[in-house]
Amino acid sequence: MVLRHPDRDQIRIEGVLAALGNPVRMAAVRVLDGGGEHNCSSVLGILGVTAKSTMTHHWRVLRESGVIWQQPSGRENLLTLRREDLDARYPGLLDAILAGALRDEASQAAQHVGPSGG
Amino acid sequence: MVLRHPDRDQIRIEGVLAALGNPVRMAAVRVLDGGGEHNCSSVLGILGVTAKSTMTHHWRVLRESGVIWQQPSGRENLLTLRREDLDARYPGLLDAILAGALRDEASQAAQHVGPSGG
Repeated sequence: MVLRHPDRDQIRIEGVLAALGNPVRMAAVRVLDGGGEHNCSSVLGILGVTAKSTMTHHWRVLRESGVIWQQPSGRENLLTLRREDLDARYPGLLDAILAGALRDEASQAAQHVGPSGG
Repeated sequence: MVLRHPDRDQIRIEGVLAALGNPVRMAAVRVLDGGGEHNCSSVLGILGVTAKSTMTHHWRVLRESGVIWQQPSGRENLLTLRREDLDARYPGLLDAILAGALRDEASQAAQHVGPSGG
């Protein structure tokens, strides 16, 4: 089965934002951004939370919006972030988003640690 | 009626991205970013498309995600982009998104004009 991917010039910003505007998909993209070879199982292992069937939907949203490549490799699909395409089309966007996710994570961790926040 | 707005440190990137990952909300935010005083009616007038009742939902999504202020003013709500909060929390994000939307618009216009694209 050939999976449909948009060409670079078919990517639309609303699609990219909608794809990343979900905590599970954001977490998955952060795993892919961390490097290494990944397929669905390896990402699931790292996230440690989501059922494979649910994740199939999330991969499709990420693929059809142009955020990831999903390429057949053996029995699974190799998953990679389309950083080159996204950076070319929307300079600074992916970095700002990933930095923002990291920042949210740090501020939530800080709120859990101490009663000093307000 | 007091409308609920998240504090700056309650804003989450997934919420901001989901809010902007919709063409109508993106168009509305671009109007607000263009400056001037706006309420629902004035934005609707500029967009020229969406029913007021539908827009009420969109304003709520934008407000609850921390993207806009919606402040009572006379019979309507004054609408403003929370640029200062968004820029402080996610440096470069809003600019990258707005530039991306502009770029999409330009590339779509170019595709409509000529048969040379491929």
